[in-house]
Amino acid sequence: MFKYQVDEHTSLAITEMRHAEALYNVIAENRHHIGQFLMFAKNQTLEETKSFVETSLTRFATGIGVPTCIWYDNQLIGSIGLHISKANRSASIGYWISKEYEAKGIMTKCCKAMIDYGFRELDLNRIEIRAIKENIRSRAIPERLGFKLEGTLRQDVQLYDAMADTIVYGLLAQEWLY
Amino acid sequence: MFKYQVDEHTSLAITEMRHAEALYNVIAENRHHIGQFLMFAKNQTLEETKSFVETSLTRFATGIGVPTCIWYDNQLIGSIGLHISKANRSASIGYWISKEYEAKGIMTKCCKAMIDYGFRELDLNRIEIRAIKENIRSRAIPERLGFKLEGTLRQDVQLYDAMADTIVYGLLAQEWLY
Amino acid sequence: MFKYQVDEHTSLAITEMRHAEALYNVIAENRHHIGQFLMFAKNQTLEETKSFVETSLTRFATGIGVPTCIWYDNQLIGSIGLHISKANRSASIGYWISKEYEAKGIMTKCCKAMIDYGFRELDLNRIEIRAIKENIRSRAIPERLGFKLEGTLRQDVQLYDAMADTIVYGLLAQEWLY
Amino acid sequence: MFKYQVDEHTSLAITEMRHAEALYNVIAENRHHIGQFLMFAKNQTLEETKSFVETSLTRFATGIGVPTCIWYDNQLIGSIGLHISKANRSASIGYWISKEYEAKGIMTKCCKAMIDYGFRELDLNRIEIRAIKENIRSRAIPERLGFKLEGTLRQDVQLYDAMADTIVYGLLAQEWLY
Amino acid sequence: MFKYQVDEHTSLAITEMRHAEALYNVIAENRHHIGQFLMFAKNQTLEETKSFVETSLTRFATGIGVPTCIWYDNQLIGSIGLHISKANRSASIGYWISKEYEAKGIMTKCCKAMIDYGFRELDLNRIEIRAIKENIRSRAIPERLGFKLEGTLRQDVQLYDAMADTIVYGLLAQEWLY
Amino acid sequence: MFKYQVDEHTSLAITEMRHAEALYNVIAENRHHIGQFLMFAKNQTLEETKSFVETSLTRFATGIGVPTCIWYDNQLIGSIGLHISKANRSASIGYWISKEYEAKGIMTKCCKAMIDYGFRELDLNRIEIRAIKENIRSRAIPERLGFKLEGTLRQDVQLYDAMADTIVYGLLAQEWLY
Repeated sequence: MFKYQVDEHTSLAITEMRHAEALYNVIAENRHHIGQFLMFAKNQTLEETKSFVETSLTRFATGIGVPTCIWYDNQLIGSIGLHISKANRSASIGYWISKEYEAKGIMTKCCKAMIDYGFRELDLNRIEIRAIKENIRSRAIPERLGFKLEGTLRQDVQLYDAMADTIVYGLLAQEWLY
Repeated sequence: MFKYQVDEHTSLAITEMRHAEALYNVIAENRHHIGQFLMFAKNQTLEETKSFVETSLTRFATGIGVPTCIWYDNQLIGSIGLHISKANRSASIGYWISKEYEAKGIMTKCCKAMIDYGFRELDLNRIEIRAIKENIRSRAIPERLGFKLEGTLRQDVQLYDAMADTIVYGLLAQEWLY
Repeated sequence: MFKYQVDEHTSLAITEMRHAEALYNVIAENRHHIGQFLMFAKNQTLEETKSFVETSLTRFATGIGVPTCIWYDNQLIGSIGLHISKANRSASIGYWISKEYEAKGIMTKCCKAMIDYGFRELDLNRIEIRAIKENIRSRAIPERLGFKLEGTLRQDVQLYDAMADTIVYGLLAQEWLY
Repeated sequence: MFKYQVDEHTSLAITEMRHAEALYNVIAENRHHIGQFLMFAKNQTLEETKSFVETSLTRFATGIGVPTCIWYDNQLIGSIGLHISKANRSASIGYWISKEYEAKGIMTKCCKAMIDYGFRELDLNRIEIRAIKENIRSRAIPERLGFKLEGTLRQDVQLYDAMADTIVYGLLAQEWLY
Repeated sequence: MFKYQVDEHTSLAITEMRHAEALYNVIAENRHHIGQFLMFAKNQTLEETKSFVETSLTRFATGIGVPTCIWYDNQLIGSIGLHISKANRSASIGYWISKEYEAKGIMTKCCKAMIDYGFRELDLNRIEIRAIKENIRSRAIPERLGFKLEGTLRQDVQLYDAMADTIVYGLLAQEWLY
Repeated sequence: MFKYQVDEHTSLAITEMRHAEALYNVIAENRHHIGQFLMFAKNQTLEETKSFVETSLTRFATGIGVPTCIWYDNQLIGSIGLHISKANRSASIGYWISKEYEAKGIMTKCCKAMIDYGFRELDLNRIEIRAIKENIRSRAIPERLGFKLEGTLRQDVQLYDAMADTIVYGLLAQEWLY
């Protein structure tokens, strides 16, 4: 598999169509957990997961996306990816992980790997992480990694019956590399 | 012409392909003025303006964009449009105006009209305006209209040789309609 | 809304995707009435109305169609549109109206507005109206507006189980503008 | 070659991409002759002929077009094709022939063959031929074959600097088959 | 119909959309017979036959496919076609025939016609026929026509629950034409 | 970078758009060397390399291609990829390497890695390598790895002014894995 080794157990691998089913299974097993702040997880079907994989890889094909799965000892346990703006040399990182592997520092390490890849290999200048205000666990990652809280977009996202605020965190290449 | 009357002299009309040349001419006459904060204006060709019009109207066709030209007494003098996220019932407004018609309150009126259209007719919940930090004139409009400054995205945009910060302003339906 | 005011009560507005449902409802309430000479109305589903709106707007995007809805005091009551041949600077007009608003002169006024728009704003040279021979009410409009009957195309259209003749009416810019 | 034998010397063959160059050569040698009433012939490049062939065959692929070349003793000498409306079981015939082969009755025979094919094999109900009013030679064919003159569409076609009238001829299956 | 006369009774005609249903019927009546070595025949629906016809004709449109039906006295009895590589001036022939018309020498004649067409009209240099090893009847045709057995591709094709070997036969223009 | 470590120095990485220029440079420096048996290399432009990368990644997106670059100590030195037939659980491998890195056993190792990936991770049943008969160096690889020579396709490929024979080598999962 084509991968980026994060630590002894953990690696990121470009999502492949043949992993769509494994990816779907993790989503299905974590509908409530992931779906709390990411609505897609609540009802996504296998067909929709496949279509998401194809769309993501099409973005990879033109260099505006980097979709990866997180693997832990040959187990697919989550997803992390970049959405890139070439014109502005910036990207945002999105991620989720299976409940069972949460709170072990895995996602923080994966984010570090993605940030390294973005700043060092893709020559990005700015990386952004957006999280829903109430998603404390998700917000802890950019805070731990030294991102700066740059804004609070009010009622930015429809989350089931309510509107939720988005917190925007930003990190610059000059802050990470030196 | 299919239009939205803003005041006695000013109206917004859905951009039509036959106006591409007039639109191009205003851009060409204002390359330095508009191009100071919007890079596209510096070198856009007539072909590119036409292609932009077609792309924008294709967005209109699926209900995710509303591209309009600003007319003053039968003269095309600028552009204002919505980019819509249906899922989040939100939109951002983008605009520019010919130097000659600046500082007459025209753009503020046009924005008010667009905001009315967005909140009352399109049933949006949130409208955003983004401006480059140094673009004082552009920022004055959301400030005058009661938008709240929600964030400063550092080095968010490539502006010629430098990176520029983006200021995000947000306005909610509940703040506008009551 | 982006519209063309026809008289105090009546206006034409570029069809928007968000009006697809209202448009469908008028069709559904007038299946028998409209469907007498326009087969699409007999069985069209909401999905098909939406797809028609998208197709029509895509034609608008390239300047070969102008799809509008007829509004009477904030009520959607019918449809009128242009199909344009740029190469020949000509267009044909198609229209239908809810039964309840028929025979009040509304459609004649709307056609006049479309003809004005076509000859004055789009710089057309010829406008055509086609109607099924037996559709007396529809034929009355071009006759009232001074179109010339130019031909009778025999068995030109399948109308349910039978073939129907098409009457072609033509009007030239030189006949309308002076 | 896949063909329809018209007489001992003449046959119609579905246009194939490999004939695009021969087709182009006849057009190029007859620019003035064909171009008198068909503007495309005046400036068409080989690239445009190829693109026309591909478009025509794509119409053939969905059963709405039948593009053929006219062959005379292994020489490509002209073109004749059908544009089909399945919904109305009707078609129009378009044609042109090299000057050298004109006035020998070839085109009349080819039209008869196409009409037979249309009424007998494609089960059409109506076939139409349209010609520019001044194109006496082209109009002679439907008149000779018993088509009825159904209309004169005034200023229907842009022909170089002027507008030309179109004569519409119609023929019904019941008139041809019995 | 546009056809290539093979003998007094037999002809090949470019597949047309209107023949999709007849084509489907032959497949449906021969599901077991054709399906023994061609899996598509086992379950193909009418919709799939139509979609196959459209795809094949789209290949014809760009000169990389020649899909034909085999007709015997106005009866559609089978299919034969070319898949062309322009870059290599080569093609492969694929075919099947209704059980009832097998073992009469019809397919051998049709292949000869296709080979003639390929080498003489399309200027091919190499024609290939591939057959599953166990398909004795299909293999007899290239052997009878002087093709050379060039290879045995082991487990090349999934045939229901098993893998089957493919035999490749090749024929060169220089071997056929002189 | 997302990669598959082959040995201490060598790795395979999914081709990314940002590597198109490095890939082009190796081709440009090896036009004569690679181009001897692979015509694309003789004249390929940077634009064509980019378009090839996008096409290949689009194949990757649907799981029918695996395009990789060969890296040696952070230097892009060649290319190796799979073309997959899902229906038959088979693939063919294509490859080329810079002259400077030839004859060091690198390509044999890369092929072994690809074969492992194909049989173990993609669950393929058959892998094929095709080489032009005269390309001794390329043929040595499947021979060294235990592929079986299954056929010689005569005049299968246009190679500049001449036709060349293709040698087909096949390897089965059961031969590799046990």
